[in-house]
Amino acid sequence: MGEPYGGIVLATKSSPTVISDSPITDPGSGGKDAKSSGALKKSSRYRSRSLSASSTDSYSSGSSSDEEDVSPRDKEQKNSNGFSDFCVRNINQHAFGRREIEIAEQEMPGIMALRKRAAEDKPLKSAKIVGCTHINAQTAVLIETLAELGAQVRWAACNIYSTQNEVGAALAEAGFPIFSWRGETEEDFWWCIDKCVNAENWQPNMILDDGGDATHLMLKKYPALFKVIKGIVEESVTGVHRLYQLSKAGKLSVPAMNVNDSVTKTKFDNLYSCRESIIDSLKRSTDIMFGGKQVVVCGYGEVGKGCCQALKGLGCVVYITEIDPICALQACMDGFRVVKLNEVIRNVDIVITATGNKNVVTREHMDKMKNGCIVCNMGHSNTEIDVNSLRTPDLTWEKVRSQVDHVIWPDGKRIVLLAEGRLVNLSCSSLPSFVVSITASTQALALIELFNAPQGRYKSDVYLLPKKMDEYVASLHLPTFDAHLTELTDEQAKYMGLNKAGPFKPNYYRY
Amino acid sequence: MGEPYGGIVLATKSSPTVISDSPITDPGSGGKDAKSSGALKKSSRYRSRSLSASSTDSYSSGSSSDEEDVSPRDKEQKNSNGFSDFCVRNINQHAFGRREIEIAEQEMPGIMALRKRAAEDKPLKSAKIVGCTHINAQTAVLIETLAELGAQVRWAACNIYSTQNEVGAALAEAGFPIFSWRGETEEDFWWCIDKCVNAENWQPNMILDDGGDATHLMLKKYPALFKVIKGIVEESVTGVHRLYQLSKAGKLSVPAMNVNDSVTKTKFDNLYSCRESIIDSLKRSTDIMFGGKQVVVCGYGEVGKGCCQALKGLGCVVYITEIDPICALQACMDGFRVVKLNEVIRNVDIVITATGNKNVVTREHMDKMKNGCIVCNMGHSNTEIDVNSLRTPDLTWEKVRSQVDHVIWPDGKRIVLLAEGRLVNLSCSSLPSFVVSITASTQALALIELFNAPQGRYKSDVYLLPKKMDEYVASLHLPTFDAHLTELTDEQAKYMGLNKAGPFKPNYYRY
Amino acid sequence: MGEPYGGIVLATKSSPTVISDSPITDPGSGGKDAKSSGALKKSSRYRSRSLSASSTDSYSSGSSSDEEDVSPRDKEQKNSNGFSDFCVRNINQHAFGRREIEIAEQEMPGIMALRKRAAEDKPLKSAKIVGCTHINAQTAVLIETLAELGAQVRWAACNIYSTQNEVGAALAEAGFPIFSWRGETEEDFWWCIDKCVNAENWQPNMILDDGGDATHLMLKKYPALFKVIKGIVEESVTGVHRLYQLSKAGKLSVPAMNVNDSVTKTKFDNLYSCRESIIDSLKRSTDIMFGGKQVVVCGYGEVGKGCCQALKGLGCVVYITEIDPICALQACMDGFRVVKLNEVIRNVDIVITATGNKNVVTREHMDKMKNGCIVCNMGHSNTEIDVNSLRTPDLTWEKVRSQVDHVIWPDGKRIVLLAEGRLVNLSCSSLPSFVVSITASTQALALIELFNAPQGRYKSDVYLLPKKMDEYVASLHLPTFDAHLTELTDEQAKYMGLNKAGPFKPNYYRY
Amino acid sequence: MGEPYGGIVLATKSSPTVISDSPITDPGSGGKDAKSSGALKKSSRYRSRSLSASSTDSYSSGSSSDEEDVSPRDKEQKNSNGFSDFCVRNINQHAFGRREIEIAEQEMPGIMALRKRAAEDKPLKSAKIVGCTHINAQTAVLIETLAELGAQVRWAACNIYSTQNEVGAALAEAGFPIFSWRGETEEDFWWCIDKCVNAENWQPNMILDDGGDATHLMLKKYPALFKVIKGIVEESVTGVHRLYQLSKAGKLSVPAMNVNDSVTKTKFDNLYSCRESIIDSLKRSTDIMFGGKQVVVCGYGEVGKGCCQALKGLGCVVYITEIDPICALQACMDGFRVVKLNEVIRNVDIVITATGNKNVVTREHMDKMKNGCIVCNMGHSNTEIDVNSLRTPDLTWEKVRSQVDHVIWPDGKRIVLLAEGRLVNLSCSSLPSFVVSITASTQALALIELFNAPQGRYKSDVYLLPKKMDEYVASLHLPTFDAHLTELTDEQAKYMGLNKAGPFKPNYYRY
Repeated sequence: MGEPYGGIVLATKSSPTVISDSPITDPGSGGKDAKSSGALKKSSRYRSRSLSASSTDSYSSGSSSDEEDVSPRDKEQKNSNGFSDFCVRNINQHAFGRREIEIAEQEMPGIMALRKRAAEDKPLKSAKIVGCTHINAQTAVLIETLAELGAQVRWAACNIYSTQNEVGAALAEAGFPIFSWRGETEEDFWWCIDKCVNAENWQPNMILDDGGDATHLMLKKYPALFKVIKGIVEESVTGVHRLYQLSKAGKLSVPAMNVNDSVTKTKFDNLYSCRESIIDSLKRSTDIMFGGKQVVVCGYGEVGKGCCQALKGLGCVVYITEIDPICALQACMDGFRVVKLNEVIRNVDIVITATGNKNVVTREHMDKMKNGCIVCNMGHSNTEIDVNSLRTPDLTWEKVRSQVDHVIWPDGKRIVLLAEGRLVNLSCSSLPSFVVSITASTQALALIELFNAPQGRYKSDVYLLPKKMDEYVASLHLPTFDAHLTELTDEQAKYMGLNKAGPFKPNYYRY
Repeated sequence: MGEPYGGIVLATKSSPTVISDSPITDPGSGGKDAKSSGALKKSSRYRSRSLSASSTDSYSSGSSSDEEDVSPRDKEQKNSNGFSDFCVRNINQHAFGRREIEIAEQEMPGIMALRKRAAEDKPLKSAKIVGCTHINAQTAVLIETLAELGAQVRWAACNIYSTQNEVGAALAEAGFPIFSWRGETEEDFWWCIDKCVNAENWQPNMILDDGGDATHLMLKKYPALFKVIKGIVEESVTGVHRLYQLSKAGKLSVPAMNVNDSVTKTKFDNLYSCRESIIDSLKRSTDIMFGGKQVVVCGYGEVGKGCCQALKGLGCVVYITEIDPICALQACMDGFRVVKLNEVIRNVDIVITATGNKNVVTREHMDKMKNGCIVCNMGHSNTEIDVNSLRTPDLTWEKVRSQVDHVIWPDGKRIVLLAEGRLVNLSCSSLPSFVVSITASTQALALIELFNAPQGRYKSDVYLLPKKMDEYVASLHLPTFDAHLTELTDEQAKYMGLNKAGPFKPNYYRY
Repeated sequence: MGEPYGGIVLATKSSPTVISDSPITDPGSGGKDAKSSGALKKSSRYRSRSLSASSTDSYSSGSSSDEEDVSPRDKEQKNSNGFSDFCVRNINQHAFGRREIEIAEQEMPGIMALRKRAAEDKPLKSAKIVGCTHINAQTAVLIETLAELGAQVRWAACNIYSTQNEVGAALAEAGFPIFSWRGETEEDFWWCIDKCVNAENWQPNMILDDGGDATHLMLKKYPALFKVIKGIVEESVTGVHRLYQLSKAGKLSVPAMNVNDSVTKTKFDNLYSCRESIIDSLKRSTDIMFGGKQVVVCGYGEVGKGCCQALKGLGCVVYITEIDPICALQACMDGFRVVKLNEVIRNVDIVITATGNKNVVTREHMDKMKNGCIVCNMGHSNTEIDVNSLRTPDLTWEKVRSQVDHVIWPDGKRIVLLAEGRLVNLSCSSLPSFVVSITASTQALALIELFNAPQGRYKSDVYLLPKKMDEYVASLHLPTFDAHLTELTDEQAKYMGLNKAGPFKPNYYRY
Repeated sequence: MGEPYGGIVLATKSSPTVISDSPITDPGSGGKDAKSSGALKKSSRYRSRSLSASSTDSYSSGSSSDEEDVSPRDKEQKNSNGFSDFCVRNINQHAFGRREIEIAEQEMPGIMALRKRAAEDKPLKSAKIVGCTHINAQTAVLIETLAELGAQVRWAACNIYSTQNEVGAALAEAGFPIFSWRGETEEDFWWCIDKCVNAENWQPNMILDDGGDATHLMLKKYPALFKVIKGIVEESVTGVHRLYQLSKAGKLSVPAMNVNDSVTKTKFDNLYSCRESIIDSLKRSTDIMFGGKQVVVCGYGEVGKGCCQALKGLGCVVYITEIDPICALQACMDGFRVVKLNEVIRNVDIVITATGNKNVVTREHMDKMKNGCIVCNMGHSNTEIDVNSLRTPDLTWEKVRSQVDHVIWPDGKRIVLLAEGRLVNLSCSSLPSFVVSITASTQALALIELFNAPQGRYKSDVYLLPKKMDEYVASLHLPTFDAHLTELTDEQAKYMGLNKAGPFKPNYYRY
């Protein structure tokens, strides 16, 4: 953008009127395509690239033996500096975890650029952040960036299965109070969050949440502490939904920022990410050849659009089902036939759900599918395919690979069910670090904005990320593509009625 | 959608809370990609398919001789029923105009479906509409639809050049008070509008405007009449901008609806329409072969996206310039290099502007272009290419076809300038009737909504079309594509928190 | 290629063994996709870009009045140098024709590059060429190139309608013996060819033919002259077919080169050219919007592939019919449904034939089409659509534009028939000069090869253009795209067993 | 095709003149894109979908322990019927192998259809086939099909590493004389082939070879047996090359069929297969996000075209290098910039070789690459990337996953080298069974043709598969896609000069 990071901070500090995003009081459907790590809570694992092993088995490798150990809560551990304010699986794994973090850094250009640009400003100086997210190499890059920007942090996991133990060890070794390991019990889970919120000589003033658990615990257990919080940043559909409910109920006493619906994050989480992961998931799990296959995609939102674009590009014949006439018309104009599922269900080779709805694919549909039909879900939750309807005595399940079940009809017909109807891209492929970089940059900027906002800019409500910051996240990622932005001349800015530093679009602009 | 038109009317009549579109108080930039007939006022002609002649010369044909005639205002004309409350070029041309209208009807499925579905309801019964738009076969379909829905209308042209005289004649023959001909003087122009507004025994209560001239005249000249208007529907960027200014200045005493920014209309006016017209315009004017050509598209909004998709599909190498980092990142993810114009200007074969800004292509750029480079504008107005900078003594202009100029440098280098920098798709191709059908349906539904809205639903402000109606416009056009919508089950609607009849998305949904 | 033109000539002169293309003794089907100007003989016009007028009416413009004149054969004309060995419509039109030629030169980079590179070598010195082709600006560029390379020429038209009179005048003014005008009688046609073959003090030694008429006339009428011919170059399907028949019958006493099936020419005439012209033809004739339209393309050869790629790119739903299982499998892998015509005929919006076969679309099919269905032919001849079956008393024909007929069924159903079933791209769009440049370069190189080949390299048979020359034609056109070839290192050439200058592929390579 | 398999057999038996494919006497480069299992001999493993484990580790699973065992040659094994004429790793693994074969059968529709259609005819009755190919589930389907068609077979592996031991066991259990296991020594390798060639009471009359080793052994060691062979079918580039050399040297005393260059097989092995496997290989090994990445593909043959189409579809910016001007011009027309490698090497994110040449990517190039650049090979052999040049003391190699090395420069720059420069799609993804079905069908038909051909149809030379059989292979695979061929009417066949059953194209047709 040709503009220093400092410009952003300055702008947000000094010109409150620039920020015109009004609070969203209608939680609405949260975007039927929305997808967040909250959605997979306890039901699936957040996969990311790992140095340690092939991408398909990063979680089954390495640390299997130590998981049989005594609970980390019963072990005393110190890092090499004698620091012991943490609880991880095994501090000795730190070197390996550090290597993973270093690799992630190379693939997260946006958050690293932010770290560099804002290192002197220390815009998070005096911030005391309770973090509760998945803990993996990419999160570590975020955590260490927040620290570079001046913040103090305490961090727990938002999921009992998703922690990369080696990364936890590396963070502890670097002196971060991390409370998290893979395979926590439910009780461990809340204990860890509690250790972050309620520490001696440490009063948090910011929350970075993924699913709303830290927020929830603080609100319930430490209402006094909660009141002095300056802001909450939440990135999951579930967490955002809980915030809107709190707000409606009049119980939200601090400003919160919904980063789940920022433009840049949404496009990457849905359209761009799914365009690649649908291909990757199906290949890794079934080795199917795409050319000439007939596919029906249920739902033509961002996720559906991404899937269709990739499948069409590889020579599939794609059909769409839709409930929304505008999205249906888009599908038509993009060259897809819009049908009811029953019209094509007997002929298709692959069925993909991307609606955010429930029971989109029913037992009745599956009874009609042809032998070998693949069924998978790219949508918001695990309700789209009525998997329970397949658990009847007349059908036989046969697990052929780790995320692949054959469900066999009495006549021998098999359908191939992926990930038992959970999000196939999270189960059967990995999430590129670049996508996580977008999310992490969005989270960091939301923290900066809320922490530095002058009194009165934000009320106790739920806000979208200001468009200018949304644009800034995008600009942080352009150098990766060697993309060169054009700057408005003074004359052009005046003609358009725009500030040369943005924002460049009205809030209702659809991109 | 499986729901009768009546359902829509009923819903809008009885359930005000359904309609949640808040007034837009920030006119913003109106969307940099926005394109409306208002934009071409007096500077270009609105082209549409015509039976009378090949598509490239529909306006140069036919009626050339009668334009030398006496002014229509000085002629006495009657239609075959003796009706004379109109003023057109030549009533005798009506048969030919009627044929044009019949052809347009076949290509405007949405508005024709609306006509059929609502014919019994007569939702515009008692509406008295002053219309001021381009007058051509497609408009005639709209006018006759409004009449079928119960409205009385009086109609003038919004542009002194764009009237299809034969269509005017056909409407007059059918008994509509039409005041319009091609080649009006400025004075004629206002006289015609005045004849619509100020008629004996006729007090208008609705305005359908394209550019804001009818609104403006009424407000200035007949303030008393203006006060009893129930609503204004405006479809042009210019007209919408004027409405927002009125609103800001506190002078807007009636509700107005900005149909320019409805989802369906915007997608068709920009993305889908330009995807085809950029190809068509360049082919018709230059016969260029696209394969392997290097093209730079300035601006990656809806118009730019449409252009790029088509050009890439035909084998061009496409570069993008952008000021907005979010749009720039979209371009990257879509596989385009984002550059500054100077980086590629010496190498490209075609330069296309689609920014809505001014002086995007300067004389300095054109000095660097290679011999034979084609320069054209797909953006909002005629300011994007600094054409004036080419009118210097050292350069020679040579008109090689009607919309094609060669501008010749002293060293013999030629650049090929299309439509003198005006909108090339309006100048060098024709607008499909299907796109006009979307717009016309949107206008008709906006009139119905404003006319039937219960007291208090709309204040004296500028509103977007309710999403439900936006969806309805889309649904009217699905049968053309034999597209079959899926309906939500009760259980699914409950799960999603949606009404089965829509709207299906929150207002901030980006499509 | 980094190699001078001279290298080619040298190579072909000195190393006969390099040329390994064996004669094709089985004329086969000539390629069902083949398309040549010979195919349109007397039934359609060869359109090209013209300065004089919009691209859609280049032939109806300008010279209409002089066509009523006395026959050119009855006029005495001299050019400004007093030269009179020509017969054209009107020598005074030469300035306009020269301008057309100059514009064509700019758009024919390959043939112009050849002219420049070979100007010193004069590889056609002593060649005396009888030419019989369409006569237009692009042909003029070829003719003048042949002259620059040392040849003497005499030229007639291969079609009584296709001559651009102004261009004929310009060539005559430049001193070329041209015998051709638009609107010749059959008798004029043969008289003109005769004037080229049988001139005083001039014994031709090469023939450049398009359709085989010059060859035929010489063989029949001047068998003695025919025997001293060194070679024939033929570019049309029809002409090539006649040559193979002569060869089979043992009547071909000279070597002939079939340039119709050279790789580069074929790809441009069929795949690349049709990819653009199908869009252009449909737009110019019907203004149809492509997005969401259902189209069936009959035949998935090169022409069909080109059509489908473009239509898919613009959002059409495309179906294929095929008789050949290999092409059908290609269609599947490219993402198209392969159907029998009857399966989709009731639903499609557009029917395109590209088979080279006859009666692919029958009256029975057309009886089933829906109202408004567009029917057109991109294939080899005008037999694909059974147009005659539509000339029955129950159907009404209505011409709505120059190449557009509505055929109306008793129930009011209309189908839109383009160009009466002739080649729609030749009738309704224009052929890019770039494509003609490929053909012209191929023809010139074939003449050079046959003229310079050492005794014995070619026997009295029909040959394909040597691959090395085919590659050279391609290389002549690369600079237009700023494309940079890589050269083999000595080590790599040895490893591959290739000559660094090519040819680079075995003869059976499929590209 | 609407024609029974019997038709094919009948035709080939009774009408020798239908088969017009002349022997190819110029081995040429064998197609630079050609890829065969012969190419990976001893250097990589042939991956296929496996029930036993996730696709990425099918070979590391299961049978690791038994490989440490005593040599199979030292074990006595019998199947459940007491049959012992085989030598496999462990006969007890047969049940698992049988399951793998059953799964493969479902995914190989063409060969299974052939099995069914020809089962009654027994066209291979009396054939005694020595087979020498990779031994995996797909090969087993071929072997059992040959047996169903009447043949007796004896089979060995063409690669010491590629045998799926469980499949070998299943075949042995079914009574096939199989001599093959994973991890043979060189001496084992020849011993196994010998056991197939030289068996008691068994004189082979056909060879099915993959790499030429069975042919070579028989020719050298059993010249008398070799003389009575009726035909050889060879599918690898290497084996075909050896056959052409034998032919040139006058040592080939039997007809051989080169199935490597049949149209259908070539398209699937190269274009269609690589279009998918380039994406799959890069994803599985690096988890890279494709959107916006800059990629250079060296070579625009079938493999390169496939790669580029997929990469472009996922939003990459793709550059091409080429030595052949025709392929370069194709790249231009497909919308790719053609450059020399040095022009882009500093900027690209991914380098892919697909030339069949050597040292296309040199150390000098790799010195210039940017940090993180991925380098991989999709071409014919492992020579394209000069990997040896990277084994210098100044560079550090770090294996990060099984097929992924980081090569680290002194300044810390890393490049990511996949599969050490071997074929990345064979190393890092799996070959779809559908592609193998095409190959297997081609092999079976070639055996049928050679075995049944009347005396004199084939001489002691190397032939391409007759086009009619090539078409038949394609037709066997159409039902998978629910594709419906159109049949020529008698009138159409006559007009085209074609037999209604094919072949449909001249031999030089390029598809």
